[in-house]
Amino acid sequence: MERNMNLERQIERLKELKTQLYQKDFLLTWEKSEDELKMVLEVAAILKNMREQNISSKVFDSGLAISIFRDNSTRTRFSYASAANLLGLKVQDLDEKKSQIAHGETVRETANMISFLSDFIGIRDDMFLGEGHKYMLEVGAALDDGYKQGVLPVRPGIVNLQCDQDHPTQSMADLLHLKQHFGSLEALRGKKIVMSWAYSPSYGKPLSVPQGIITLMSRFGMDVELAYPEGYELIPEIVDIARRNTKESDGSFHISHSMEEAVKDADIVYPKSWAPFHIMQQRTKLLQQGDSKGLDELEKACLAENAKFKDWEYNEEKMQLTKNQDALYMHCLPADITDVSCAAGEVSKGVFEKYRIPTYVEAGFKPYIIAAMMFTNRFENAPGVLKKILERDTKRVNF
Amino acid sequence: MERNMNLERQIERLKELKTQLYQKDFLLTWEKSEDELKMVLEVAAILKNMREQNISSKVFDSGLAISIFRDNSTRTRFSYASAANLLGLKVQDLDEKKSQIAHGETVRETANMISFLSDFIGIRDDMFLGEGHKYMLEVGAALDDGYKQGVLPVRPGIVNLQCDQDHPTQSMADLLHLKQHFGSLEALRGKKIVMSWAYSPSYGKPLSVPQGIITLMSRFGMDVELAYPEGYELIPEIVDIARRNTKESDGSFHISHSMEEAVKDADIVYPKSWAPFHIMQQRTKLLQQGDSKGLDELEKACLAENAKFKDWEYNEEKMQLTKNQDALYMHCLPADITDVSCAAGEVSKGVFEKYRIPTYVEAGFKPYIIAAMMFTNRFENAPGVLKKILERDTKRVNF
Amino acid sequence: MERNMNLERQIERLKELKTQLYQKDFLLTWEKSEDELKMVLEVAAILKNMREQNISSKVFDSGLAISIFRDNSTRTRFSYASAANLLGLKVQDLDEKKSQIAHGETVRETANMISFLSDFIGIRDDMFLGEGHKYMLEVGAALDDGYKQGVLPVRPGIVNLQCDQDHPTQSMADLLHLKQHFGSLEALRGKKIVMSWAYSPSYGKPLSVPQGIITLMSRFGMDVELAYPEGYELIPEIVDIARRNTKESDGSFHISHSMEEAVKDADIVYPKSWAPFHIMQQRTKLLQQGDSKGLDELEKACLAENAKFKDWEYNEEKMQLTKNQDALYMHCLPADITDVSCAAGEVSKGVFEKYRIPTYVEAGFKPYIIAAMMFTNRFENAPGVLKKILERDTKRVNF
Repeated sequence: MERNMNLERQIERLKELKTQLYQKDFLLTWEKSEDELKMVLEVAAILKNMREQNISSKVFDSGLAISIFRDNSTRTRFSYASAANLLGLKVQDLDEKKSQIAHGETVRETANMISFLSDFIGIRDDMFLGEGHKYMLEVGAALDDGYKQGVLPVRPGIVNLQCDQDHPTQSMADLLHLKQHFGSLEALRGKKIVMSWAYSPSYGKPLSVPQGIITLMSRFGMDVELAYPEGYELIPEIVDIARRNTKESDGSFHISHSMEEAVKDADIVYPKSWAPFHIMQQRTKLLQQGDSKGLDELEKACLAENAKFKDWEYNEEKMQLTKNQDALYMHCLPADITDVSCAAGEVSKGVFEKYRIPTYVEAGFKPYIIAAMMFTNRFENAPGVLKKILERDTKRVNF
Repeated sequence: MERNMNLERQIERLKELKTQLYQKDFLLTWEKSEDELKMVLEVAAILKNMREQNISSKVFDSGLAISIFRDNSTRTRFSYASAANLLGLKVQDLDEKKSQIAHGETVRETANMISFLSDFIGIRDDMFLGEGHKYMLEVGAALDDGYKQGVLPVRPGIVNLQCDQDHPTQSMADLLHLKQHFGSLEALRGKKIVMSWAYSPSYGKPLSVPQGIITLMSRFGMDVELAYPEGYELIPEIVDIARRNTKESDGSFHISHSMEEAVKDADIVYPKSWAPFHIMQQRTKLLQQGDSKGLDELEKACLAENAKFKDWEYNEEKMQLTKNQDALYMHCLPADITDVSCAAGEVSKGVFEKYRIPTYVEAGFKPYIIAAMMFTNRFENAPGVLKKILERDTKRVNF
Repeated sequence: MERNMNLERQIERLKELKTQLYQKDFLLTWEKSEDELKMVLEVAAILKNMREQNISSKVFDSGLAISIFRDNSTRTRFSYASAANLLGLKVQDLDEKKSQIAHGETVRETANMISFLSDFIGIRDDMFLGEGHKYMLEVGAALDDGYKQGVLPVRPGIVNLQCDQDHPTQSMADLLHLKQHFGSLEALRGKKIVMSWAYSPSYGKPLSVPQGIITLMSRFGMDVELAYPEGYELIPEIVDIARRNTKESDGSFHISHSMEEAVKDADIVYPKSWAPFHIMQQRTKLLQQGDSKGLDELEKACLAENAKFKDWEYNEEKMQLTKNQDALYMHCLPADITDVSCAAGEVSKGVFEKYRIPTYVEAGFKPYIIAAMMFTNRFENAPGVLKKILERDTKRVNF
């Protein structure tokens, strides 16, 4: 009962937020206002709270949530399935290999064909620089058209499950983790977060996680430090967004080229491998040309280049340099853990083990973040609907 | 409120129809009476209407709808998933590659093994002439046996999602589109519909769409014209059905060998590629023998033959010949569109663009046609159940 | 009404059973007490009874049931999907090929990542001797840890869908079949059941079915005879369990090396191929080493060895030797049927045909056994919840 009063208060506080999330796709966090980001965070926390109290938040009696995964996924796939199921939707995966799409069907057409009874489309498209976000916009325009023309009874909302620019379901889950860890968004002000490149035996990892982290964390007055070996740049325009954000939020933004330097006095460290921007550009071109020999050569050259930076491992020594020798370690998982998943990786076994459970907790927010994105897209008066859910008091497990 | 009175009236009118759809598979439209076809059309329209008014038509609290796709599919797969979800069923796909069926398990056995808690089985099997329909009958007989013997608690209904002979979920969706476009089935009387072969850079497309169209549209007093280059015959027995139908319905049936001639004064044109009947027979044999060299040679020969008929493109010139220069263009999608999906195809870019949205609307009826086939299979008193759904007034989106 | 009184009585009788199934994984039948086995059997029978009377036993409003199939499956896949759906859960399959798990992610991590909103994990892992059961324990330990650490809101229950040691959903379904066929568990006392190796043109079939059968049927005072050609041993420790069981239950246990001798006066025969234990050990090693040449050679040698025992076919002659020439024939399906699925197999066409329908009935219990395992894992007071379901009286098909 007392906990439900907490829920009531949580819901009540939402009313202070001015948002225009209703019927808007969630593609890039930097297109959303601070209030909108807060709304998604809070709704996610409320839905999680409800789930843990066995309160069903099912709001759809039927309906499909389409998923389009143009790259492998476990965590996000399960998070999306969990979110859809939580709200009462059924996931229908568009497996482009089993479809008839191959022979030149337009995105415009496919987007409509799969949407007649759909409420959401979740898309992961992170392989090609310059493509993923563009594709989502194209799908969105097709859905707008279909809805306007009376083809679709509702305009399905799009949830970006990772594109070439941003990975908002990840960064928002990460932010909710920070909020709960440090107590509030306000508490993040002045905290130092280091988004650092780290060595990995593989190459070609997307840029969207580091880009998502620096552009989002810079909204809340944090001191954001981006560290990478020279040459491992992110997309410059997106780094600029992060820089601008810190100015507006009274935080700071720095780029450095030493993990050791960067982690000094850090409150939070996020060591993760990625491929250099210019390599991703070449890789995109080779992938589009289907040039497998070129890709092999590029991979070889990159791995050789990477190998020069094996000391970019986050380990006990570096941890000692952080605030109270205990900066919160974050990762989107799976991490390349030295002596666990590889001989030399992003993080030492000991450090990972110390923060293993927190990284699991971090990952556990993602289903609710996705559900909150869906919820706020669909209900103009999200607080009102949450209140009704609370009053209805349907149990998730019935007995 | 007024719209619900419309719904009530729509439901009320169903009572005039004499049907025996209850517990009967929906395999071929020509096995169904005119009243039965009307019932499926009307129930589909009512379910669509309900969905658009946010009225949940969920009638199953649990239960599986099995799908067996022996050929690729996007539209039909999503339509089937949507239909099942609309009524409260969960799609379970029988992926024959992931199953143990390979080593000689009989259809008889598999049909029962997947049906213990199933309400429907949707089957697409259109690759082999002489096989698809036969397979569905075999599954049906196995289910009859299992039900009679007490193995199955209910006899799952079979929905033909495309076989070698017919594609009833497509043709019925097309018919519902025509009904709504022209205002009534009665308004179709005397209208000229042209089912025309059209050039495509691929070959081996199934015959079931043109066969489905001519056999169904011939039931409603239309002037049906079937046009194709000499040699591109459909299955003769099925063409005979269409011919017989037009006699009985006071329409007419003609075969011609020029798209230009055929489309003159047409009210509706359906230009679509298919493989010649005799080629499909050869192809079936080669596929069954696994003769990939033979298949390659056949493909080459066919494509060369096809290439002689590149002028069988439906374009602006031909459109000018139709009734009011504006015959309704139809296609089951995806169409081979010249300069969009290929260099030369079934339809010119301009014409397709003009009728693009109507083809999307056309496709949008399929989920409801499938749902209506399920609904009428399961409920002997379909109008009564629809009335109860209306009275119950559960919202699809709850708040 | 009278039938519901039967249901009430069935539920009432459950209260006599002392069980600790609540929140315990169902991995091996020999870890469960006799009362626990009876509880699962009875709950399965009740759920089946309810389903057949159109009573919905949905207890979850939302929630996921994960499946991990490390080997092909049709029957068990559909049974698991049916069970989950019956209780209101949505199956989410972890397709290890589409996931990011490949690069060294730990079981510990994956188990948590897929479980944030999951209620059950069903696992089939029967390819490697010494691996399947171990893997399930590892997943279980990871879930325990995640739950204890607050990562998971509930501890998902694990259902063994076949491991290297046991196949409890199969053997329990088989036992329920025997119970219903002979009238009661008590009636099985003194009945002779023969688990016999049989010839098959394939090799490498898992040991878990015969092991599951002898360890379970030996609990109920049956005379268990295990027959196989010399060299086709099962795992010795597991055979010992069966031997011990018969002593405790006042049954008997024998091993013989002639199908003909074994089936004499049998009440029940279960002829099924399996690979010899020592071959499975070699095979496991070769599979783990990815030694495809070695595997080919082993297969060749084994098939040659197998071929010496083509007379291990259960046929009319052997059937004549059984009790009243009519022992109940059992099989987990699909069987290798001579002249149906192969030239020479486990059972003759005539005998299989005679008992075909009973084998389907046998298979039909599996979905309910799985549902009962889930149900008793989740509800401490299973009889109480079943009673509430009966009182609630929600229809599965609503109208």
